[in-house]
Amino acid sequence: MSKISITIFGGTGDLTYRKLMPAIYNLFSRNLLGENFKVCAIGRRDYSNEEYLEIIDSWIKEFARLKIKEERLLEFYKHIEYYKMDFTNLDEYSGLNKFYENTSFDNNLVYYAVSPSFFEVISDGMLRVNNLKNPKIILEKPFGSSMKNAKFLSEKLDKNFNSENIYRIDHYLGKEMVRNILTIRETNPLISKVWSKDDIESIEITALETVGVETRGNYYDEAGALKDMVQNHLLQILTIVALDNPNGVLADEQLDVLKNLRPIEKMDIKKSVVLGQYKGYRQEDKVNPSSSTETFAGIKLFVDNKRWKNVPFFIKTGKKTSEREIEVLVKFKRIKDDINPNVLVIKIQPTEGVYLEFNIKTPGEDGITTAKMEFCQNCNLIFRLNTPEAYERMILACIENDSSWFSKWEQIELSWKFIDELKQAYIKNNIPIYEYEVGSDGPVEYNLIK
Amino acid sequence: MSKISITIFGGTGDLTYRKLMPAIYNLFSRNLLGENFKVCAIGRRDYSNEEYLEIIDSWIKEFARLKIKEERLLEFYKHIEYYKMDFTNLDEYSGLNKFYENTSFDNNLVYYAVSPSFFEVISDGMLRVNNLKNPKIILEKPFGSSMKNAKFLSEKLDKNFNSENIYRIDHYLGKEMVRNILTIRETNPLISKVWSKDDIESIEITALETVGVETRGNYYDEAGALKDMVQNHLLQILTIVALDNPNGVLADEQLDVLKNLRPIEKMDIKKSVVLGQYKGYRQEDKVNPSSSTETFAGIKLFVDNKRWKNVPFFIKTGKKTSEREIEVLVKFKRIKDDINPNVLVIKIQPTEGVYLEFNIKTPGEDGITTAKMEFCQNCNLIFRLNTPEAYERMILACIENDSSWFSKWEQIELSWKFIDELKQAYIKNNIPIYEYEVGSDGPVEYNLIK
Repeated sequence: MSKISITIFGGTGDLTYRKLMPAIYNLFSRNLLGENFKVCAIGRRDYSNEEYLEIIDSWIKEFARLKIKEERLLEFYKHIEYYKMDFTNLDEYSGLNKFYENTSFDNNLVYYAVSPSFFEVISDGMLRVNNLKNPKIILEKPFGSSMKNAKFLSEKLDKNFNSENIYRIDHYLGKEMVRNILTIRETNPLISKVWSKDDIESIEITALETVGVETRGNYYDEAGALKDMVQNHLLQILTIVALDNPNGVLADEQLDVLKNLRPIEKMDIKKSVVLGQYKGYRQEDKVNPSSSTETFAGIKLFVDNKRWKNVPFFIKTGKKTSEREIEVLVKFKRIKDDINPNVLVIKIQPTEGVYLEFNIKTPGEDGITTAKMEFCQNCNLIFRLNTPEAYERMILACIENDSSWFSKWEQIELSWKFIDELKQAYIKNNIPIYEYEVGSDGPVEYNLIK
Repeated sequence: MSKISITIFGGTGDLTYRKLMPAIYNLFSRNLLGENFKVCAIGRRDYSNEEYLEIIDSWIKEFARLKIKEERLLEFYKHIEYYKMDFTNLDEYSGLNKFYENTSFDNNLVYYAVSPSFFEVISDGMLRVNNLKNPKIILEKPFGSSMKNAKFLSEKLDKNFNSENIYRIDHYLGKEMVRNILTIRETNPLISKVWSKDDIESIEITALETVGVETRGNYYDEAGALKDMVQNHLLQILTIVALDNPNGVLADEQLDVLKNLRPIEKMDIKKSVVLGQYKGYRQEDKVNPSSSTETFAGIKLFVDNKRWKNVPFFIKTGKKTSEREIEVLVKFKRIKDDINPNVLVIKIQPTEGVYLEFNIKTPGEDGITTAKMEFCQNCNLIFRLNTPEAYERMILACIENDSSWFSKWEQIELSWKFIDELKQAYIKNNIPIYEYEVGSDGPVEYNLIK
């Protein structure tokens, strides 16, 4: 077994506490990390190793998927070390070498769990850590903050590291039900047969949250919904739903969809995009009091190829909406105007499952009623226990050099191009950022483009 | 509102107690019988009216779908009269006239809830009941006991009554989920689109019971599974599943399927039919100790038309099997040999509902697992309360002169022809009646034709 090291920049950040450490503990519990693995958590705060372990202890106990065995947990902590450094100071990087000098680690993950603005300096700093051979760099989304900036970053990474070792993470690709979309499309003739413009009326991809920006005000106010959610997560799901051949090479197939997105200059922006901001957003911590950042985005777009000609795809994401929900809804063509269409819904989060709305005879009468055939995946305890969290799966994929579920640069480039141009067109058309009520479904203006 | 009379031959029989009286009470509860209706229950036993009401009281309380209100029930009993007569004696029929002399009933149902061997004599006797104008005759299945005999009976009924007034009941057509098959086929593009040989591998229609012949040994030993279940109920379901146009005239469409059944002479009987008898059947009450009557029938048949070319239909029915279950199972063609097919199941009884077996990604792994999307209709209390029992619905249809859900003579004729010829061919081929274990799935030999 290879000797694994995992270096985390952002060791005291929310992502590390909430997702990475519990995920790494799960991998350890599953005996997938070997005897000699080491985790180096890097932060600016002045913690002793003991203090740091005490902090992560409560997070792991709250968030780890697998049952905690105290003895195993103590064993796990022997592999974790905290290192205090200012990672914006290149001179401090050589100090990291001592972590890796006693063991010849040969499977080295370096996780950039920090704001994209630090990706560059860390990439330069890592050149000074000579004891870490051939590091695999895992980058959190968003990758950059615009196409220009992402391109610059991409070139820097390619220069400093082996380009096969760049793992641009989009943890949505690690979500069980996102992966399941492909299997469902691939293995069910009843579904694959109707997966095109011939039978589908429209497709809606929705990711709503009830929470606001919480502690991430400074990051979010720079990004907004388009960059935080649409450019990455939602376009990922869109490309998986729309790709032509579920048996093909995933990244190539996804890229093909992005290439066929109807270009912004051919869209009627006023009838295609609605951005919104929830009431009270400007009073949030670390948010500009006159901010025009969007916390809601609703987009009607088209994939201009043979399969999807004139089928609208509706992408919708927002914060502080009435419910928390990520799902793909496929509305099939009606058989008659007065009969409800068949609707297939793939629930991604928090419920994982699939349901089909279909028509039955109204029980006891002669009319027609719509009913639901339902499969709830996470209602099943065995399935739930068997399902790794997205991060657990993605870290393992990186350990195993399986890059198939990470984003390729060309995908990111085209996604940024689409989002940059869309945002510019929105501003150019003088469309306002519509205000919406907390706990609503987003700005009412969205209904006009649907 | 019309003045309704309901005359029941077989007033002390199991069907009347268990099904008809509770159904009529439900109709009364729903205020569908008017103020002046009258029920005349005819039997040979020497009961007073009070004694008879006392008997049906406990049956209604056990089997009526709707909540019993004691006051309403007492009101209901004012409309019921018991009449003792020997209905094989034509001279006794004129005595019935006094029941109908004070009210001018104009909607007269006469229910033959007796063995088919009495249908003829009752039909002749009814000619002497002059006070009952234009009676509507409801005949329980089986209609006759062979094609020849059914034809004779049909001619007699046509001679004695207005042929539009003959209601040949098959209460399976009153079952909610049997009716639902048509609605489901008609209103769901995802289903109607794949309802043919192009996408379907095979269809199985199953009606299994855990009980044996119980008190009906003498009737059943004459009939057997082919005449008791296949000739009527199962061919009814088959024709509904297979008919070409769910929007067409039901009887015509059903007839068309029967006309296209692959003729017996073109079937390889040894590879198409398995009959069986459960162990211990010959020791049942009122059963011939050397009986060769089948209590199980498994048939592979074909509908030789464009839609169903070479799609096998498997019909299976049996007593004392491992479970009680009536369902239609549609197996779709596989997308690949090693991937399970999509399977759509319409559950008719005791569970009412629909489910679809489809494939998903094995949670947490890369394989494929089959999962179930499920709609349970009778799990829903509101739906359950709203759903009339089959008999309630059929009696109401007769009151309303809606003959669309009753069998036409031509259907019955073709069904008998098929069953008669099939039974003859089975005997001619010297195929044994296979014994099977109580609580099994029927004779193991059935697996060889599947």
